[in-house]
Amino acid sequence: MDKILRVKMGEEGGPKTVVEALGEYAGLGGRAMTSTIVSKEVPPLCHPLGEDNKLVIAPGMLSGSVAAMSGRISVGCKSPLTGGIKEANSGGQPSQVLARLGYAAIVIEGQPADDNLYKILINKDGVEITTDNSLKMLGNYAVIDKVKEAYGDKVCAISIGPAGEMKMSAASIAFTDMEQRPTRHAGRGGVGAVMGSKGVKLIVLDDEGMSKRQPADPDKFREANKAWVQGLKKHPVTGEGLPAYGTNVLTNVVNEAGGYPTNNFSTGQFDGASKLSGETQAELETSRGGLATHGCHKGCVIQCSGIFNDKDGNFLTKQPEYETIWAHGGNCGIDDLDTVAQLDRMDDDFGLDTIEMGVAIGVAMEAGLAKFGDAQAAINLLKEVGEGTPLGRILGNGAAVTGQVFGVERVPVVKKQSMPAYDPRAVQGIGVTYATTTMGADHTAGYSVTANLLGVGGNVDGTKPEGQVELSKNLQIATAAIDSTGMCLFIAFAILDQPETFQALLDIISGFSGQPLTADDVSNLGMAVLKAERDFNARAGFTAKDDRLPEYFKKEPLAPHNVTFQVSDEDLDKVFDF
Amino acid sequence: MDKILRVKMGEEGGPKTVVEALGEYAGLGGRAMTSTIVSKEVPPLCHPLGEDNKLVIAPGMLSGSVAAMSGRISVGCKSPLTGGIKEANSGGQPSQVLARLGYAAIVIEGQPADDNLYKILINKDGVEITTDNSLKMLGNYAVIDKVKEAYGDKVCAISIGPAGEMKMSAASIAFTDMEQRPTRHAGRGGVGAVMGSKGVKLIVLDDEGMSKRQPADPDKFREANKAWVQGLKKHPVTGEGLPAYGTNVLTNVVNEAGGYPTNNFSTGQFDGASKLSGETQAELETSRGGLATHGCHKGCVIQCSGIFNDKDGNFLTKQPEYETIWAHGGNCGIDDLDTVAQLDRMDDDFGLDTIEMGVAIGVAMEAGLAKFGDAQAAINLLKEVGEGTPLGRILGNGAAVTGQVFGVERVPVVKKQSMPAYDPRAVQGIGVTYATTTMGADHTAGYSVTANLLGVGGNVDGTKPEGQVELSKNLQIATAAIDSTGMCLFIAFAILDQPETFQALLDIISGFSGQPLTADDVSNLGMAVLKAERDFNARAGFTAKDDRLPEYFKKEPLAPHNVTFQVSDEDLDKVFDF
Repeated sequence: MDKILRVKMGEEGGPKTVVEALGEYAGLGGRAMTSTIVSKEVPPLCHPLGEDNKLVIAPGMLSGSVAAMSGRISVGCKSPLTGGIKEANSGGQPSQVLARLGYAAIVIEGQPADDNLYKILINKDGVEITTDNSLKMLGNYAVIDKVKEAYGDKVCAISIGPAGEMKMSAASIAFTDMEQRPTRHAGRGGVGAVMGSKGVKLIVLDDEGMSKRQPADPDKFREANKAWVQGLKKHPVTGEGLPAYGTNVLTNVVNEAGGYPTNNFSTGQFDGASKLSGETQAELETSRGGLATHGCHKGCVIQCSGIFNDKDGNFLTKQPEYETIWAHGGNCGIDDLDTVAQLDRMDDDFGLDTIEMGVAIGVAMEAGLAKFGDAQAAINLLKEVGEGTPLGRILGNGAAVTGQVFGVERVPVVKKQSMPAYDPRAVQGIGVTYATTTMGADHTAGYSVTANLLGVGGNVDGTKPEGQVELSKNLQIATAAIDSTGMCLFIAFAILDQPETFQALLDIISGFSGQPLTADDVSNLGMAVLKAERDFNARAGFTAKDDRLPEYFKKEPLAPHNVTFQVSDEDLDKVFDF
Repeated sequence: MDKILRVKMGEEGGPKTVVEALGEYAGLGGRAMTSTIVSKEVPPLCHPLGEDNKLVIAPGMLSGSVAAMSGRISVGCKSPLTGGIKEANSGGQPSQVLARLGYAAIVIEGQPADDNLYKILINKDGVEITTDNSLKMLGNYAVIDKVKEAYGDKVCAISIGPAGEMKMSAASIAFTDMEQRPTRHAGRGGVGAVMGSKGVKLIVLDDEGMSKRQPADPDKFREANKAWVQGLKKHPVTGEGLPAYGTNVLTNVVNEAGGYPTNNFSTGQFDGASKLSGETQAELETSRGGLATHGCHKGCVIQCSGIFNDKDGNFLTKQPEYETIWAHGGNCGIDDLDTVAQLDRMDDDFGLDTIEMGVAIGVAMEAGLAKFGDAQAAINLLKEVGEGTPLGRILGNGAAVTGQVFGVERVPVVKKQSMPAYDPRAVQGIGVTYATTTMGADHTAGYSVTANLLGVGGNVDGTKPEGQVELSKNLQIATAAIDSTGMCLFIAFAILDQPETFQALLDIISGFSGQPLTADDVSNLGMAVLKAERDFNARAGFTAKDDRLPEYFKKEPLAPHNVTFQVSDEDLDKVFDF
């Protein structure tokens, strides 16, 4: 990872690729890399779909090594959804492969003058960019079929579906998994639209002939990685809950806690929750010959994913995540796992953020376009998105646009990005994160659900305002650092509760780089990333007024606890006091 | 004008009306009244379509008197289009009538719990609010037919069409003219959507039994008004150009100057301009038995309007304004006045801002939904808006939403409001106004076209950045004051060039109030209004970054002068240094 690939789409005579030394970006990875480049190089007031925006794809610092869980890849740009900086990260194979090919980042910049569609091949011999209009408007699954045909079953790929080509603000970027399926997505903020605006449909990565990245201190690294794996396997969440039931282990937990946003955030419990739960899902998956326990990339030891087969036992989609099941399920009053899985497959194929789509459909239901609970209507609405009908383009541009177009007041967004699967009135720590993160409403940016509901990393009552700002602040800082390492965020459960596992992580990083590393260094990295992001957003025109939940969360009490969001504006403004 | 009518839509048991003394709002009128109330009473972060927004309707300070040109009425609220404060004003009869009924403002607040539609009757006996669901989804013309049937031909009315009921961000509020037709509109910023969100479809005003408002110093007032009318008739713009050809006298002027935005602001001259010009229009109107010279309200001496009949000599619409003809004409590559007039009639009937709709259709054409110049396609697109189809709802929410939904980069908006009929590259003074006014892109907020193109109030070369900030600043201050008096903005031509006509205006106001008045007092009023508006916007989260044109105006040169917008950000930030 000693070089950066610049793909210059707007050059005379067609796109050019340039490989550069790391320069000032040396030592960065993942979110630290994408946010630093975007903050330094992208004019904050540029049009997100214009030539001045850049799409940065960066493996984590540890990606490409044998460190367990180090397969996350970050995508950064100015977001067409929020207008602010964006980092969306994903699992799948490409992070390890890109890192082994030696690239610390791909930066796609400029814009082609024509409307050709391009694909990029990166392998040990270098980089090749070619026109391929045969890919136009193909779904991600069809794109990957062509990849397999042309390049075999060893390569991995990064691609966009029709949503990205149509530059929808909910468009994602797909990353292939271990089975070479486009099931892993940098979902949020419309990163797929930015890739679409650059005219790039597909990046194929082939690391044949390359080797694993080697640690500077092999002994230290090996020992630490062993302790690391032991620590992850020991913790009840990463060692038991997630492997057995996936992220969907949360459905029953969050629903029982009264924080499960139901029917477009109108109540905090869903009658049909048990039909959607991880327990039900695992049983269904195994009964159909799928898998309830599976990883998304090589080197994963948590194995929170799975394989979801249809009623005939044929592969339909990867095990949908908790947030997907909630967005397309309870948030729309739908309690049928097969419907949710079908919607998940469609999202992956069209290249769409499942959270944004579920919330947009919930808002459309509130507008009267369909009834809450009408599964077929939800499928029909999502079909329109893939087809790019006017209605589909509305939904495909997210919940905020859908709300404006249909005159709906109750639209659960912050910075125009849809809230995920935790109601901020019953889980006020996540409300602080939604409000203040640079990303727009995002649970992963500071997952206060840990202490609010799960008793991980302490206990802070989710229904009360006290302690939430401190909780969210610390998690946001830690997360910005973790997102830079390439580590899957789920490691957080173990490192929050087990000091020796946190030490193992420090030792892995230190063993890999050969440099000493303290907990403070990690904090400082997290704070530096957040500051670069906040700085970009300020220059893009964001103020404290953007760090607020929609007013109705402060006015409408949420059943069953009958609580409103009570963290004061003054307290929200303290999150970034560092 | 010694009282304020509060219409409280959200009361238990249904809407209630309360009449209050003026209190702290005494002495205010028009824009000063609406912007002061909105800035003081509306929470800046509220949802524009929610219960906390307020719709304020206020006659000008001089409305209801016999002062010539004093019939403008202001509408204020938080805008659903821009998210900032909004004042949109209109001609027509209601300003004079409401003032004579004694109301300095109507404030519609709260929100009904049901989805009934309400109408309000205001006459000498008081105020009556009743449910009238027979009005649902009627066009403004059909609404007014019912008004005439029920209340006779002496009343006037304020109403919304289907666009307002559908809460579209381009929805206007209609005010009837002298012929009791709904042809005058508070067009910009979605004020009609706010009225729709309050459940109010119609306000009928009947001033039978009331008298004209009397000046405190009748002699001074009478003399001043005489000099005033003489001054207006003497100036070539207000005495000749506007009466003969209406505002559309500008088509040839702006086109010849190379500042006529054509095909979605892609070039500055339109081949078909002469077919759309005021000269052509006047000839067409008179040949069909219409009128080329006509007023929009009693007491108008400029008479810039007219009557546009169809090919069979039947009334179709009032003479469309220059900005309407440009928006639906040259901006969409359409050179046919009959098409433009038909679109104008549809906008008036559906209750839509003609500028926003023309620009939205231009963006849709750039997106490939229709070809530039395709008149029938433009008509079909606008029909969809009236019908509320998904595509219609996209367009009806304005150019910014249309651009986002269809992934278009070249969207000529500031603060999400569409630019009017002057390209800011060739008319850089109006570019400064577009960028910096509190309203979003708005020519009326500081009409620098005067000195940039017309040689009125001095000469400042429109293609160069020098002098534009000072020009725009002074005009913005003066305009905020004029918009508070109830005077039509077109008086500006005469008062900019003729000191004695400006003195006559001061004497009219002073004669009416009985208080001395200097030019500085007028400036101070203008600055106070702008400060209240800027303060609201700052509290709503606006910063200097929102006072910018889209980047492409700084990068793409405009033919025929091949100029870009060159006023620097630093200079733009000086506009409100006062």
